[in-house]
Parts: sequence; C-alpha cells; structure tokens
Amino acid sequence: MAPRKIIIDTDPGQDDAFAILFALGSPAELAVIGITTVGGNVPLKLTSENALKVIELAGRPDVPVYAGCPGPIVKKLKTAEYVHGPTGMDGADLPTPTTPLQAEHGVNYLVRTLMDAPEGEITVCTLGPMTNLAMAMTMEPRIIPRIREVVLMGGGFFQGGNATPAAEFNIFVDPHAAHIVFESGAPVTMCPIDCTYTAEMTVEWLDTLRATGKRAAIEAANMADFYRQYGGFKFKTSARPIHDACVTGYLLAPEIYEQRLCNVTIDIVSPETIGMTIVDWWHVTGKRKNCNVLRRIDPDPFFALMLERIGSLG
Amino acid sequence: MAPRKIIIDTDPGQDDAFAILFALGSPAELAVIGITTVGGNVPLKLTSENALKVIELAGRPDVPVYAGCPGPIVKKLKTAEYVHGPTGMDGADLPTPTTPLQAEHGVNYLVRTLMDAPEGEITVCTLGPMTNLAMAMTMEPRIIPRIREVVLMGGGFFQGGNATPAAEFNIFVDPHAAHIVFESGAPVTMCPIDCTYTAEMTVEWLDTLRATGKRAAIEAANMADFYRQYGGFKFKTSARPIHDACVTGYLLAPEIYEQRLCNVTIDIVSPETIGMTIVDWWHVTGKRKNCNVLRRIDPDPFFALMLERIGSLG
Amino acid sequence: MAPRKIIIDTDPGQDDAFAILFALGSPAELAVIGITTVGGNVPLKLTSENALKVIELAGRPDVPVYAGCPGPIVKKLKTAEYVHGPTGMDGADLPTPTTPLQAEHGVNYLVRTLMDAPEGEITVCTLGPMTNLAMAMTMEPRIIPRIREVVLMGGGFFQGGNATPAAEFNIFVDPHAAHIVFESGAPVTMCPIDCTYTAEMTVEWLDTLRATGKRAAIEAANMADFYRQYGGFKFKTSARPIHDACVTGYLLAPEIYEQRLCNVTIDIVSPETIGMTIVDWWHVTGKRKNCNVLRRIDPDPFFALMLERIGSLG
Amino acid sequence: MAPRKIIIDTDPGQDDAFAILFALGSPAELAVIGITTVGGNVPLKLTSENALKVIELAGRPDVPVYAGCPGPIVKKLKTAEYVHGPTGMDGADLPTPTTPLQAEHGVNYLVRTLMDAPEGEITVCTLGPMTNLAMAMTMEPRIIPRIREVVLMGGGFFQGGNATPAAEFNIFVDPHAAHIVFESGAPVTMCPIDCTYTAEMTVEWLDTLRATGKRAAIEAANMADFYRQYGGFKFKTSARPIHDACVTGYLLAPEIYEQRLCNVTIDIVSPETIGMTIVDWWHVTGKRKNCNVLRRIDPDPFFALMLERIGSLG
Repeated sequence: MAPRKIIIDTDPGQDDAFAILFALGSPAELAVIGITTVGGNVPLKLTSENALKVIELAGRPDVPVYAGCPGPIVKKLKTAEYVHGPTGMDGADLPTPTTPLQAEHGVNYLVRTLMDAPEGEITVCTLGPMTNLAMAMTMEPRIIPRIREVVLMGGGFFQGGNATPAAEFNIFVDPHAAHIVFESGAPVTMCPIDCTYTAEMTVEWLDTLRATGKRAAIEAANMADFYRQYGGFKFKTSARPIHDACVTGYLLAPEIYEQRLCNVTIDIVSPETIGMTIVDWWHVTGKRKNCNVLRRIDPDPFFALMLERIGSLG
Repeated sequence: MAPRKIIIDTDPGQDDAFAILFALGSPAELAVIGITTVGGNVPLKLTSENALKVIELAGRPDVPVYAGCPGPIVKKLKTAEYVHGPTGMDGADLPTPTTPLQAEHGVNYLVRTLMDAPEGEITVCTLGPMTNLAMAMTMEPRIIPRIREVVLMGGGFFQGGNATPAAEFNIFVDPHAAHIVFESGAPVTMCPIDCTYTAEMTVEWLDTLRATGKRAAIEAANMADFYRQYGGFKFKTSARPIHDACVTGYLLAPEIYEQRLCNVTIDIVSPETIGMTIVDWWHVTGKRKNCNVLRRIDPDPFFALMLERIGSLG
Repeated sequence: MAPRKIIIDTDPGQDDAFAILFALGSPAELAVIGITTVGGNVPLKLTSENALKVIELAGRPDVPVYAGCPGPIVKKLKTAEYVHGPTGMDGADLPTPTTPLQAEHGVNYLVRTLMDAPEGEITVCTLGPMTNLAMAMTMEPRIIPRIREVVLMGGGFFQGGNATPAAEFNIFVDPHAAHIVFESGAPVTMCPIDCTYTAEMTVEWLDTLRATGKRAAIEAANMADFYRQYGGFKFKTSARPIHDACVTGYLLAPEIYEQRLCNVTIDIVSPETIGMTIVDWWHVTGKRKNCNVLRRIDPDPFFALMLERIGSLG
Repeated sequence: MAPRKIIIDTDPGQDDAFAILFALGSPAELAVIGITTVGGNVPLKLTSENALKVIELAGRPDVPVYAGCPGPIVKKLKTAEYVHGPTGMDGADLPTPTTPLQAEHGVNYLVRTLMDAPEGEITVCTLGPMTNLAMAMTMEPRIIPRIREVVLMGGGFFQGGNATPAAEFNIFVDPHAAHIVFESGAPVTMCPIDCTYTAEMTVEWLDTLRATGKRAAIEAANMADFYRQYGGFKFKTSARPIHDACVTGYLLAPEIYEQRLCNVTIDIVSPETIGMTIVDWWHVTGKRKNCNVLRRIDPDPFFALMLERIGSLG
C-alpha cells in the first residue's frame, strides 16, 4: 500500500518538531508532501525557519515548506515564548537550512494541492492555530470534500485548557479558524490535551532516544529537555506530554488511542470561554457528530514507536 | 459547641431530600433553622410541598419552610422531571405535611434572618438554582458580609456538565443567580458534579439503609431507587451519585473532601457555555480566588456517616 | 373618572423631580399612590432622600416613599454625578423632609400593592434603572398580569445611546432588569431619548416657570439650570431634554406623542451593545410587538401643560 | 493629475452596477484597475457574471474581473434575491460578456496588486460583504499600510439596520470581515445607510437618465425600476436610495458629503446585534477614531454628477 499523503501545518515548537520527525521517520506509512507554517508558538518568520531546520535535521530538505498566515483571522496573535523559548525551538543545536522557503503562500499551496489531488487522498495535520486551513476553506470551499481527514492537535475539555481555564493554546490563538474547520463538514479528528496528557515523555525515554546516537534523535532529546522545564506547577514529575507528536502517533497506530465520535463546538463568543472546544461526549445536544475525539493513548507502544521512528533518521 | 446554623435553600428532588434528612439527622452538629424553596427540578408548588413532606418524614415539622422564587431571574424555568419524576420525589410514599408553608417569602426570610443574626453566624446551603440567595443579595447587599459560608451543590468542570455539555443543571437553570453569588464577595464552597461523581451510592448501601427499619431511611431508599434509574447512558453500574447530600457531608466532615481555593467564573454570555462554572484550577488568570472547590470525596466514610445519620431519624 | 393610579419608581435626579412634580400637580388625572427609589443617578441613600425632598417641595408629604434596591441585579452600579451633581439634585434649595422613608422594601411594596389591587388598575412608571420592578416580577410573577401598563423613561435607538454609543443610561445601568420587564408580557411603553430629544426645555420656558412665583416652580427651574450645563458637546443651544418628565406627559396627553407598537429587545450579551434597546421599527424579525415606542413629542403643548401643572403646586 | 486608482470589490446587485458605471464614466478622476467579486446579494457565480456584464455594458471589457470568495469567513452566506431578483440584476437586458473571468483568485489579486504598487496608491472600494479584503489582510498584513483608503458601502447606525433591526446587509453577511478591516489600521471611510438614505433616486431622475438615449444609461434605469420595487413598507414614495453608487459619489465629490471621524466597532458577539456598526459619534469611548463616517449627501449635485457620468458611457 502506498504511504498516506499528509500535509503538516505547523508552528514549530519543540513538540511540532517531534511530530514532524516522527512522520518523516515513517516513510513506509506517511508521505509528507508539504509543510505549511503559521504564526503561533512564535511569529511566522521563526516558525518557517524552524520548519526548514527540522527537515534539514531529518535529512529531508526535499520536503517543500510554504509560509502561511502570520497571525489569526480575527484575533491578534498571542505567542508562547514562555514555553518554547525565544526561538520557538530552544534547547537544540540545529543545522542551517539548505533549502529556501517556497514562494507560494501556504494557503494557496493548500488550495492548489487539494484541488489537484484525487478526492479523499490528502490528510491535513494541523499542529498549531488552524488559520491556514480555515483560510483555504474560505477561499475555495471546494477543497472541503476533497480532504481525507483533518487531524489536529488542539483543544481540551476534561482537563480544561492551558491558555485559559477553558481554552487550549492552539484553539485559543485562532478560535474562528477552528470554528470554520469544525463546522466545514470535513472529517475532523481532534487530539486534545485530555489525550496528550495521558502519554508523558519521561527523562528515561529521552535517554533511550539519545542512546540511539543519531543526530536527529539527540537534538530532539535536547529540545525536549528545554521544553520539559515548563509546567512544573501542573505536573508532579519532570515527565511531560509531547502534544503534537500524538497526531503522528494517531496516523501510524490509531488502535492505541481511545476515541469517540462526538459533536465538538468551538466557542467564539464569551470572553470567559472563547476558544474552548465543547465536547458533547454524551451526545445530549443532538448536534451532528462532527469530530472524532481522541481521549487516551496507550503510552508504552506510543513511545516505543516514536523511539524507533525518530531513531531511524539521519 | 453549639450546632452550626444553616438555612437550606432547595428544590426537592430526591437528592435534596437526602441532603435534608442527612442534616436533620445530625442535630449535634447542624441546626436547620429554616428551609427556603425554589423552582428548579420541578415547579415551586411541588418543591415546596416536597420540602414539607421531607421534614414530616424526618419527624421535624417544626422546621419552618418558606416558598421563594418560582423561577430564575433572567431565563425561563427549565425543570427536570425526566430525572426526578412528575412530583420531583417519585419513588417514595411520603407523609402528608402537618405544617403549612410560612407566609413570608423565602427571599424576605433570607434577608430578615441574615440581618438579625450576628455576623458570620449563618451558613446558606443551596441545593438548587441559586435564585433566592441572589435575589436576597440584590435586595439587601448588607447580608453579604453577614453570611458565614455559602455551600452549594452545582457546577461541573472536569466532567463537563449534565444539562448541556458545558453546564450543570442547577447553575444552568439560573446562571445569573450563580454569577451574582460567586461575584458577591461572600465565602463560597462549591460541590460540583466533579466531586459528587466520586461518591456513588450503591444498591448494597441502600439495602443497609433499608435494613435500619426506620421509616425515613426506608422511604429515602425507595426514592433513591427511582432516582437511580436515570443516567444509564453515562454510568456503568446501577450506582449513582447523590449530589445534594454531598453538601451535608461537607458540613459534617470536610476532612473527607479534597478541596482547592480557586477563581470560579460563571458564564452568562455564550449560548454554548452559559451556566458553565469555569474553574481556574491552576490559577492562571490571577483573578480573585472566590471559591473553595470540592474535588473528591472519600466515599466510605461519607456513606457510613450518612447511613448513621439518616438511620437515626424517625 | 377617578384619577389613574401610578407608582413612580425613581432615582432623582433633576429630571425625575420634574416628572414627579408634573404628576403631583395633576391630581385630577393622576393619583401617585407611592414612590419607590433605586440606586441609579446617584446611590440609593441620596435618591431616597431626594424623593422625600421632592414630595415635600410639592406639598405632598403624604405620598409614601419606599427605598428599593441599592444597585442593579447583575452588574455593578454606575452612577452619573457628572450630570446631576454630587447630590443628584444639585442646583435647588430643597426643603427638609418631614416624613421618613417607609420601613417596607420598595420591591415588597410593589409586590404587595399590585397583588392587592384589582387587575389592570395600577401603572408603574420607572424613571431610573428598572431593578425594582424586575425584582418584583421575579419574586412574584403573578403581579405581571395585574399591571395596567409599565411606562418607562429609557432606551434609545435612532439617537444611539448616551451612556455608551449604543446604550442609554437607565437601561445600561441594569440591562438585565430591563430585559426581564420587556420579556415579561406586561404592556410596556418606552420613552427613549429618541423621543425626549424632540422636546427641549429652553431658558425662556424656565423663565416662565420661575415667573409663576411658586416655590416648587422656582426650585424646579433652579435645578434645571444646573442640569442644563451638561451636554454642551452634543446640543447646539442651552436648551436640553428633560427626559423623565416625558413619562408624565405621556400619561396626561398621549395624543401629543408619535407612537408605534414594536418588538424591543434588550441586549445583555455583547460588551459593545449591552443595555441597547433594539427596536424592530419595521417589524422585520416577526418577534412579538412587546412595546409601545414613543418617537416624538409635540413640544409646545407638552411644555404648556407642564408649566400649568408644576405652576399649580405650592 | 493622474486619475485615482481604485479596485472595486463587489457583489452586483443593481446598485453595485450604478457604482461601477458611475466610476467607469469618470475616467478623468478614477482608474478602475480591477474588479473583484464576492458572494453577497446573490451567489459568487452570479455576481461574477454580473460584473462582466456591467463592464461590457460600459464598453470597458478591458477591466479585469477576478472572482473572490464565495461566502463569508465565519457565517454561512445569506443572499438577498428578495431585493435584487434571482439573477441579482433583474430588470435590465444586459450584453453577453466578451471577456472571461481572470484565472487568479480575487484575494490573491488584491494581495499582489497592493504589494506591487507604491505605498498609498490604491484605494479599495467594497460594495458588498468585506470578505475578500479581510482575507487579503489576513493572508498578507503587509498590504495594510499600502492601502490609500478603504471606502465601503455598509453599516447603519442612526437608521438602524436593514438586514436586522441593528445590522445592515453587507456587514451582517460577513461581520467578521468588517471587524478585521475596521480594526486593521487602514484608513476606512464608511458610507452607511444613514448616508445613502439621504439621496433618494426618483422616477423623474431615471427618466432623465433614460432620456440620454445611451444603452448603459437606459439599462441602468431599467434595472433601477426593478430595484425600486422593494422597500415599499419603509419608503413613502417610489424614490429609493441607490446605496453603492454613493461610494463613487464620495470618491468624485467628497465635498457634497457630511463627514465625521469616529470610532466604529463591529459587533461580532450578540445574536441581537451581530454585524452592527456601532458609531461613537460623540467620542464618548475614547477609542481610536478609525473611520470617516459619511452622514449626509447633498442629493442634487450627486444625481447631477451621476447623470452626467453614466450618461457619458456607450
């Protein structure tokens, strides 16, 4: 079977880097046909450079990277240097990119690629604010039925949020974009922090990653060490979730995820809950089940698989 | 030490009945100086009759019952006969009340009683929509600093809601009332469904309650059997939470509850989240910690205590 | 025909004083059976004292005055000393009241009086935030069908607002109260600033009022002189609307008002429009026509009548 | 002086056609460098065809037309065939276009053209929902400081709205787009219905237009006859405003418009007021004056000029 074609829309971010490396290390299952970048964890200029560095680190400078929107649709951009450091990928010593950014805008790349591909062929994975995909859907709604699946890291319900008490960062940054995608009719799989918190990356696992001796693995471990510093007020140990990587895990091994098809609505109204992903887990509203919600990961096979795949790079 | 003076504001409801019986069965610790009723689980006429029947069942027809507001402040009343049955207390054979309702309005009773008592003496326990207490606070804000503590059953955050995906029934029915109380400055302890779901009442425990041979205990068990029928889509066994009774449990044995002082904000704006209790568990907003949030109950001592106290009645 | 029985709910305020004097000077048509006060233009303590002073000035210390709610239901009180001066009635030298405030709460007075009167007998005129009437309706909804008419000064649509670009002061201060009353089903007549702005009180007219030589008339003119100072940025001359008095004018001479039955909805949601009275002037929504909207006054007969009536006092 | 370069973003619509013909008939003052179309009055396919027909009618098939977004950013499209007829331009017999639509997306055309032109050179006139311009600003915010002026037909404040009691059609259809543009920092001139209602197009004027004997003028008059039919419930005579044409009038003769620089905020929150243009006419909020609000037109010179210019075509 041919590998599944995916476009990764991302704002790297250390955990974005894990997600990308994890995907690029799985060429038999996943073909990363392009990467689009967005302003999110840090501004667009940095997320674009970071994406280029990650493909370089992975030994895959052939993957085209397209810069998309610098900020959200309606709100002003809010970044998260307090988590990721000023570069967005602090902690690692990364190679200088040998490939430039593509000239085409990320939103146009999404529209063109989806319109040119057979229906149901391409999966779009968003690891940051969903601005680019929402913009593409507004510019050209005929892409919507052509998308195989949208798989996104974002949201949180049973844990509350991490940007505000009610909202997770990626959705909070551009709630209107998320609203557009969730209401679009495209099949959506959401990996919220409720799910990512069930697979904590430990120091021991990072040691095994480093022990592979490969550059990509070692630098991934190094950036994870920086990333692990944040969250001490919330997590009891030094282990941390590695949010975006859970999207790649789902694409490779959906069977290790607990899932439920639900209605998910994005609040775009209340100052207290804007950006919240309201999950109708018990189907009490009768609203269309528009989202496959990932709820729990079996951490052991997840980390074993990620070790194997990132460890295979470089 | 003199027993703690409490006013119970309630919309019985089987679980309200448990809360009241539990309190009336604990005269050494709690003095129920009055009961006020509100439209909620069923309309006011029924909740008022039900309250009279409960004190009759408890052998305490001396406790004065005051009818309060028939419906919420801004919204239209939404009742829950699908949970409680058409009378609100289906399942039990209850005595005819020998005492009439008091002539005074429940809101005026709250104002008068709080103004007449020494500061910090009286605790107000709300087991239904918080309409009466909010109305009293608006009519006479000088009652606010006189309240020892507001202890309420309502809200839900880590479980979502039970009236909508985001909102629990009591708060959803009158979100503006809850908003008024939470913002009032009075000390508030909230027992949300996140907490009540951790103490499930089993068939076996109901058998032990029945085995006391006392009328109040037997009828409580009977109404619990009706009440247990609802929720099969959500709970795996026939055990069920007994929400309102957890308020009495907290008054008697706070040490068996996990608690945290947080900011809690009530959404009154978004159609998707109106009535939600947004808990700032990690104190990320910096807003005033206006609420002691109950998070978990140790179920064994809770049910042992409730068995002893309800079993002591009649 | 017996005079029409009215209760005036008020937060004096110079223009409230005109409305009250105008009514008390019209005993053949209007019987002011009671006055209730509310926090609004200035705090409740002052509005209550001011009401007592006004009835004293009118030579009618027999009219009972009941203090109601000190502030709005959900929002925090916002006062308007920048318009009315620190006392709320700056500009006049007013007599010391000889009657005390009644002991009964204004809200309870409204409930009791409306429940005791024949259906359709009593008109409630609100000249400030509608808190007291809304509270009474929530405490005892059976008063709603007993009200003959609610006549209120408040709102603004074609002029925008005067507290915010979208909201008029009285409604802005307690939008939830207005929402309750407008949605209650009671017949409501609204006198918005769109209407009051069409009858500007001139310096010349105040001179004729003073020229009556009566104390009430002279002090009314004096307080109007203070009141006229505000609004220079908006009005081209020193003439000013005398908002609340337009309610009395309508009760006495409805034929000099342009009117239309419309749906009026109060926004309680958006930070930009909260407290706005949205008038469906063209009936495009199909919503129930819940409000008789006053649109324009014929100023000459209005001021002639007010001169006669206030001039008859004292 | 070289003519002012404008891009017309439009959803024709009979009044859009007047605006375009008016502009194309004024080549000494205005250079229409391109037209972008949007879903609005009728769906995008029709508005695009209509734009092509209008340039054909004007004898200007050289003006490039670019189809933009088929619907609004967040909301679902709401069209207005009840005003414009099923084609959007009912009433006229229009020529078959000889030029095809351009291949480039309207949003990309806006971005490219603005980025390539000198700063402050190009004016963007939006005659429909502001989707395309808002999308362009989100894709490439660097266009914002390059725009000379945004001149839009839309909004309404002192008249209320025409789509809902509070909102005018163009803004109501895509309130988020309007919000983006108004908050962008670009200089915005708004021509609301408050302004357009002050210049009513009469049957007599249409007769003079027809009397020019020119095809464009005659067909414009014919479509105006269809367009005039709507609004009988609101307007006293058969005269009607010709909304979008007022934008062209402003570009040609700003001195015949009353104007004021204000803050204008677009509500995107309340179901009652979403899409409302809240005009801070008296500058009470202190918010940035982001909009030049057109308030009144001198109708005689306006219609004289439009007669001359449309009459000059063909």
